[in-house]
Amino acid sequence: MEPLVIGIDSSTSATKAVVIDAGGHVLATGRSRIEFFTPHMHQYEHDPRQWWSSTQEAVAQAVAQLSAQDRARVKAMGITHQRETFVALDERGEAIRPAILWLDSRAGEQINRLGSDAVHELSGKPADTTSALYKMAWLKEHEPQVFERAHLVVDVHAYVAHGLTGRWVSSTGSADTLNLFDIAAQTWSPTLLDMAGVRAEQMPELAKPGEVVGPLLPELAAQWGLEDVVVVAGLGDGQAAGLGTAATEPGVAYVNIGTSIVAGVHADEYRFSKQYRALVAGIPGWFVLESVQNSGSVLGNWFRREFNDPALEGAPDPKLEAAAAQVPAGCEGLLSLPYWNAVQAPYWDPFARGAVVGYGSGHTRAHAYRSLLEGMAFELALNLEGLARGGAAPVRELRAVGGGSRSALWRQIICDVTGVEIVRSEVEEASAQGAAALAFVGIGYYDDAAHAASAMAHLGERTTPDAKTHDRYRKWMGVHRKIFPALQDIFHDIQDVAVELGEL
Amino acid sequence: MEPLVIGIDSSTSATKAVVIDAGGHVLATGRSRIEFFTPHMHQYEHDPRQWWSSTQEAVAQAVAQLSAQDRARVKAMGITHQRETFVALDERGEAIRPAILWLDSRAGEQINRLGSDAVHELSGKPADTTSALYKMAWLKEHEPQVFERAHLVVDVHAYVAHGLTGRWVSSTGSADTLNLFDIAAQTWSPTLLDMAGVRAEQMPELAKPGEVVGPLLPELAAQWGLEDVVVVAGLGDGQAAGLGTAATEPGVAYVNIGTSIVAGVHADEYRFSKQYRALVAGIPGWFVLESVQNSGSVLGNWFRREFNDPALEGAPDPKLEAAAAQVPAGCEGLLSLPYWNAVQAPYWDPFARGAVVGYGSGHTRAHAYRSLLEGMAFELALNLEGLARGGAAPVRELRAVGGGSRSALWRQIICDVTGVEIVRSEVEEASAQGAAALAFVGIGYYDDAAHAASAMAHLGERTTPDAKTHDRYRKWMGVHRKIFPALQDIFHDIQDVAVELGEL
Repeated sequence: MEPLVIGIDSSTSATKAVVIDAGGHVLATGRSRIEFFTPHMHQYEHDPRQWWSSTQEAVAQAVAQLSAQDRARVKAMGITHQRETFVALDERGEAIRPAILWLDSRAGEQINRLGSDAVHELSGKPADTTSALYKMAWLKEHEPQVFERAHLVVDVHAYVAHGLTGRWVSSTGSADTLNLFDIAAQTWSPTLLDMAGVRAEQMPELAKPGEVVGPLLPELAAQWGLEDVVVVAGLGDGQAAGLGTAATEPGVAYVNIGTSIVAGVHADEYRFSKQYRALVAGIPGWFVLESVQNSGSVLGNWFRREFNDPALEGAPDPKLEAAAAQVPAGCEGLLSLPYWNAVQAPYWDPFARGAVVGYGSGHTRAHAYRSLLEGMAFELALNLEGLARGGAAPVRELRAVGGGSRSALWRQIICDVTGVEIVRSEVEEASAQGAAALAFVGIGYYDDAAHAASAMAHLGERTTPDAKTHDRYRKWMGVHRKIFPALQDIFHDIQDVAVELGEL
Repeated sequence: MEPLVIGIDSSTSATKAVVIDAGGHVLATGRSRIEFFTPHMHQYEHDPRQWWSSTQEAVAQAVAQLSAQDRARVKAMGITHQRETFVALDERGEAIRPAILWLDSRAGEQINRLGSDAVHELSGKPADTTSALYKMAWLKEHEPQVFERAHLVVDVHAYVAHGLTGRWVSSTGSADTLNLFDIAAQTWSPTLLDMAGVRAEQMPELAKPGEVVGPLLPELAAQWGLEDVVVVAGLGDGQAAGLGTAATEPGVAYVNIGTSIVAGVHADEYRFSKQYRALVAGIPGWFVLESVQNSGSVLGNWFRREFNDPALEGAPDPKLEAAAAQVPAGCEGLLSLPYWNAVQAPYWDPFARGAVVGYGSGHTRAHAYRSLLEGMAFELALNLEGLARGGAAPVRELRAVGGGSRSALWRQIICDVTGVEIVRSEVEEASAQGAAALAFVGIGYYDDAAHAASAMAHLGERTTPDAKTHDRYRKWMGVHRKIFPALQDIFHDIQDVAVELGEL
């Protein structure tokens, strides 16, 4: 009997569980929502108990769809998850305060004060609003009792692994995203732990991606009707999507056009550059070089909610999409800087904001919408340039996943702007599939993660660039790249006034 | 029997005729629409025959509402009109080509080439997209046969006066707006006529504002049931609004919040500065110093049409207005540069465009709308600063007319941003009333225009600034004023790329 595994992806909004075979075919999926809380503007928190309750619910849903025979085939579970999110726990494993999310941007002041090239070189991560390090430093300063009392400070991987196995184990490919690693050594850095205000003994144990953490707790196995299941260490959802799309060769990047836009390539040695952040990969000893835009489909959703027909309540709108498709490439000079949620590579400026520049009275709603899609594509093109400038092989193929990749218009815009072919992944849950690939490695079905990834990948529709449109976009791109340098001081002034007026 | 006069205002979109008494009370009004044509992007034209047909229609409507007794009281007609618009006519008075409007911006290249401080000092008018001079130069280069064939080149005043009296007579307060005057001498400048490609003998005769042009043609008098009516030379609609609101004292400015936003003060000597344009006033020997923003209520209309509920088709929306009123002053850091139709004072850059800067994901449709209103208010505050910097008395009171002045929200925003009291004029048609005031001067009822204006003005609701909000706005204003200098090069780049791609 061929084995099956369950890929668990505990993301910002939901936990998903996918039962999958060694050929990458999905037999069943489960999904359970997670709420987030915004106690103040720019603060985002989770109740970590929902990480575990949603995992239980999603796995229960998925296995309930299996025959008894298929349930017996399940041999392993792999874990992937939202990155950079952490929670402090007491001796009983209870949260001392809510978990602080990657999305939370409370630590601007700490980023400016503690961020440095030295931290970047040590950790692989430029100072950025998503990083846990600075939010931990914020906590150390504003709520010092939290880490003083904490028995453990864990990421989502360790929390979910503990639920499944009783062991507080993270993966190097997960814990690294907290920005507390000496990345070259692939383990905790005393310097960074100190800066964050946590001690090594408060951190979870580490396993390598694809290593067995332990057996599934017998009571859970019984509850789900499973036998002989091991839990395998996974990795962060970005790198997992790189495995789920088998984007492990030089020149092949994964791009997740989701809430945010993440593009990454694999590298067999550590590199650091302002152009990307480096992360521990799912392939032992390897790294992922990754760019992030915090605004992805969230920005299109925002536009539709605020500026489209209110009757549609922000839902995708084929009419708007069709009108935007009729607008000339470059939107007749309307250019959008999509920094609604700050900017990462190459500026790493937590105070950057969005801007729309070049309005004339002939511009329409469809221009404004297309301009946002184009703006994000221009940024992705800058990111890909940056990967190459930072030492990666030039990207010749993008493997796209995420909700935004379903838009034919957006795929074509990205393709025409970047000049790079896009292949859409047919895998609905690419990160969960990456975790599943590692689970197959964990049970020895595949000998390594790259092999597993490539055996399981399913690639679909291919979009190729139109040379003439690419030429037009290159000219607009020349203007686009000047906008942030022109506006950076103004964004800082806005921040200063907002702080002075007590609005932030 | 107390006399009545008819103020005729031939504007961009309609001709209005207002029958009015010496106390400024309106007895009857007529209105007839004018169509405009846009043969190419940024080109705006009229068929001048509509100037005359709409005048006939509007006057006929107005006098039809009068009793025979009141018709007998009508002793004069005064003319005001859209400025800077011109048409070339053959011997029979037929247009050789359509009239070119102030709104037309085809002559960017000529502005850059021919505009200079010398022209500014001579004419009082910085090089600008609305000016006729550069559009005439464009015509000289692109359609040289037009001025070669032309018997006359006239403004709207002369065209309407000819319809009424058979004489091609403009007013110095009208013709001056063509930018062909030696403004200190208040007559045609040979230098500027030459630059425009027209000859002195092609231009209409000139009368001073308030001078009698001649009797109304007997056939028209008979048709309208009028007797003993003279036609009195008027002036451009901006300066006429200054008379209609009696804003003739130092420190009192008129502001027309219409399609565009025009603010002006009277001055008893000629001054020139990049901060404003100088125009011939309705008071003999005086000048009007005036700032213009080409985007006024046209921008609010654009926003509502493109971004508000499509079911409302751009109509005013009390719900949007109410939501915008709830947004904090400064829109939480969302700042709009309202240059959708280029910028006048103090930059006079025909290639400037609109921009919205400072977006975060918490910004809503109401923020975006309010930000446009605030952006125009910031620009008006800059304009008022500029008037003072250019030698005018500091403005302490704004007398507001135009559709935009009906919005309580916008009045309050303008008041809080500028820190200046706003008094709303109760006169619906302030420019027509200014022309009527001159008509009363023409028949000797009043001895001068300032006296007539103040006797006829009706001022209404007063809005006073909130000191705390004004302080908040001053901080945002500091950021706002940096935006254009930061983006100017980018606007020029956009222009260059658009030209290179053949989009302009």
